[in-house]
Amino acid sequence: MFESAELGHAVEKKVYKKEVPELRKSLLDAQFDLADDASFPIIILVGGVDGAGKGDTVNLLNTWMDPRYIQVHGMGVPSQEERERPPIWRFWRALPPKGRIGIFFGSWYTLPIVERVIGKSKKLALDKSIGDINRFEQMLSDEGTLIIKFWFHLSKKAQKKRLKFLEKDPQTKWRVVSSDWERHKKYDKFRKWSEYTLRETSTGAAPWIVVEGTDARYRNLTVGKILLKAINNRLEQNKASGAASKAPPLVPHIDERNIIKSLDMTLSYEKPAYKRELEKMQGRLNKLSRHPKFKKNFSLVLAYEGADAGGKGGNIRRITAALDARQYSIIPIAAPTADELAQPYLWRFWQHIPGTGRVAIFDRTWYGRVLVERVEGFCPEADWMRAYSEINDFEEQLDRANILVIKFWVAISKEEQLRRFKERKKVGFKQFKLTNEDWRNRGKWDEYEQAVCDMVDRTSTSIAPWTIIEGDSKYYARIKALKTICERIESVL
Amino acid sequence: MFESAELGHAVEKKVYKKEVPELRKSLLDAQFDLADDASFPIIILVGGVDGAGKGDTVNLLNTWMDPRYIQVHGMGVPSQEERERPPIWRFWRALPPKGRIGIFFGSWYTLPIVERVIGKSKKLALDKSIGDINRFEQMLSDEGTLIIKFWFHLSKKAQKKRLKFLEKDPQTKWRVVSSDWERHKKYDKFRKWSEYTLRETSTGAAPWIVVEGTDARYRNLTVGKILLKAINNRLEQNKASGAASKAPPLVPHIDERNIIKSLDMTLSYEKPAYKRELEKMQGRLNKLSRHPKFKKNFSLVLAYEGADAGGKGGNIRRITAALDARQYSIIPIAAPTADELAQPYLWRFWQHIPGTGRVAIFDRTWYGRVLVERVEGFCPEADWMRAYSEINDFEEQLDRANILVIKFWVAISKEEQLRRFKERKKVGFKQFKLTNEDWRNRGKWDEYEQAVCDMVDRTSTSIAPWTIIEGDSKYYARIKALKTICERIESVL
Repeated sequence: MFESAELGHAVEKKVYKKEVPELRKSLLDAQFDLADDASFPIIILVGGVDGAGKGDTVNLLNTWMDPRYIQVHGMGVPSQEERERPPIWRFWRALPPKGRIGIFFGSWYTLPIVERVIGKSKKLALDKSIGDINRFEQMLSDEGTLIIKFWFHLSKKAQKKRLKFLEKDPQTKWRVVSSDWERHKKYDKFRKWSEYTLRETSTGAAPWIVVEGTDARYRNLTVGKILLKAINNRLEQNKASGAASKAPPLVPHIDERNIIKSLDMTLSYEKPAYKRELEKMQGRLNKLSRHPKFKKNFSLVLAYEGADAGGKGGNIRRITAALDARQYSIIPIAAPTADELAQPYLWRFWQHIPGTGRVAIFDRTWYGRVLVERVEGFCPEADWMRAYSEINDFEEQLDRANILVIKFWVAISKEEQLRRFKERKKVGFKQFKLTNEDWRNRGKWDEYEQAVCDMVDRTSTSIAPWTIIEGDSKYYARIKALKTICERIESVL
Repeated sequence: MFESAELGHAVEKKVYKKEVPELRKSLLDAQFDLADDASFPIIILVGGVDGAGKGDTVNLLNTWMDPRYIQVHGMGVPSQEERERPPIWRFWRALPPKGRIGIFFGSWYTLPIVERVIGKSKKLALDKSIGDINRFEQMLSDEGTLIIKFWFHLSKKAQKKRLKFLEKDPQTKWRVVSSDWERHKKYDKFRKWSEYTLRETSTGAAPWIVVEGTDARYRNLTVGKILLKAINNRLEQNKASGAASKAPPLVPHIDERNIIKSLDMTLSYEKPAYKRELEKMQGRLNKLSRHPKFKKNFSLVLAYEGADAGGKGGNIRRITAALDARQYSIIPIAAPTADELAQPYLWRFWQHIPGTGRVAIFDRTWYGRVLVERVEGFCPEADWMRAYSEINDFEEQLDRANILVIKFWVAISKEEQLRRFKERKKVGFKQFKLTNEDWRNRGKWDEYEQAVCDMVDRTSTSIAPWTIIEGDSKYYARIKALKTICERIESVL
């Protein structure tokens, strides 16, 4: 969930200076169009970790936009008047009318998360709040409201650095109080429960947008561009009145950083080291797979996705070599059959959930919905947008039934892919592996990369995290996969 | 929620014999069209109280329809294979493909409700299940599935009678086992938690349909007609591809019985008795409204709806006469203003939530959405269909904040309305109360009556029940309202 927001996104000053005037002008135009059209209101929720620039962003929006059509609500301690009513009442009263923007700094998420972090409420109470929130936001969305939920994130390290930085400067020292450091100590708990809440409330109608808070210029451009696109998209949709997505757009490209580009593709093993490690890891996995506690209580789902020619097949074979042949099944996923098309898109995966003590290896997965179906336009945006939360629900069901879900994205660089394609063309027994489709997909490299980043952002969760494998070295990729699986099983035994 | 299903609905044998052949033929036709179109599947959930004819209905559908396109799943104790997977897995695997009908006899609702009734799970665990179910059904609905949820209901008395009846006949004696009587003892708990679950899961996409189970002929005709209409509606919508409601239709007219027609309009008071009672009740209410516990912890929302010339105004005046003028406000609801139209439809009511110790009296309410807006076509079916659950959510928020919600429907007979209209015309100072609109509404008497019945069925809940007032005698109506309010306040002090 937070992977993309811990990469150190940043924008250079000269780029920022160039882009901002244009963005501000467009935002003002969009705002006037919104007021003019007056067919829907916008709610912006601002949440996230301390020090990630929530307040600065709110101030910035206030500066950039026309304050006549925007209202900021800093929701602090409830007043006597508010305490006498339902907790949601203060928000009911503050909702913006059609044509206006309401910014909520502190929202209906604040209390449920904080009370869980400090242990004042139980997990099931948080679940109840989450249910209420989802129904409330669904209602707002059905009533036409465009809901944009920003979550500003900082890694633990970055938060510490930020607090220290503010303390050093006499001008900003006052902004750091002792409670900030208190809260910093609870960072891990806060991260855990916000991740959980974000996952359960990232619905098709109102998904969360996680923004890295380290660099102010990056943060500002991101927020501004998302807001601009969201307003204009909706205005256009209303004109077309099609059944397009009601959700705001995903995080746009702001800098060149993303989780795929940030991979270190030089990671590799020499053949002798690889052989040694392979033997060791396969032995370890074999033992774990026969562990009585695993056989009795758990099962394993391995989800393989990756670039064409990324080496998924060879990787999978190194896993199965460590397992008892009666224990696992490999499920290759191709285009859906007619029978499968007559069912919800998750149906064909439901058929292969492993029983206790068993391993199911999916060669391509349910993520096709948000990868190939998204990029190739096989399904409308509204459908793949809601798929993220549906997939999270699906994996949570598996997790609750003691089924460990391990998800691999096997990445390779564009150059390495070309090398492998050429090799496949040359070597007779590899030719069958290269099709025209592979070349076509390669032509859409950037779109696929964006889809992969969005997928990891929206579906990498503590219960089913993505492991991104640096795959230029097949040796390295195989060892990393084996090691990940071993460690995951060990963590529950 | 169960009001309409405790009226003793019944269909005469000769009516049944006449209607069934036609219905069966139409159902078969619809089923072929469904298979032919093959663009969506149908899921029928069958739940409800023991002895209400769940099994008989399932058997009937099997007999009436073409078994090649229908599959019944009696979900009993999970198998070993099923216990190794997520609890929902057995349902995942059993979903019907497009063009087919799947009947679930025992569904994903069974376990959560039963475990709560027998005290094996806490309320918050039920809430978690409800959240999961709502997301699951939303996903199925988004994927195109038509979900029809039947709840077969019997009053406690009717259940007892039914069990005794079965026991008497040697042919059916075997059907009653001791556990049936055990469960009968838990009727009240079962009713409470099923009402709660039905309320929270009657969403716009998949609302519950409560069917009275006493009379087999009524039950069968009702189920058959709803199913027929649901299939044909959806097939038509798909052709038109408009944004119509995805939900199945509401309970159709089968017999002449409904909660409005069942009222005893002869209930009345003579003037002397009325005066005595009025004084007594107003005194009681005045005391209660000044009770320190009420003033400190509770507030009161009175929601008045009723037929034109039903006497709402006079009724309200008898309430306020008992209250301190500083303690209450009357909120008359007319057509929404431009400002109100720029907000979700509940917004204008949010503004008037009373603070602690206070009373808010709404003269017409948020139920306009499912009454006038529905009947006059001011909003599309999909919008008023989802309003039932949104209103239930709203009232639950109030209830949780210790705001007592009392809802009155002041009913009068058609004849009495005419009499009052004529009187208004004659008496000078009453003329202003009669408008052309009143006559227009009167022309739609039956549609309004149906809308009122649906409203009560879908929004009369244990936390905010409807009180239907027999209003032909204004005296009787006033005393009943006062008494209801007094008893509600007393119940929490």
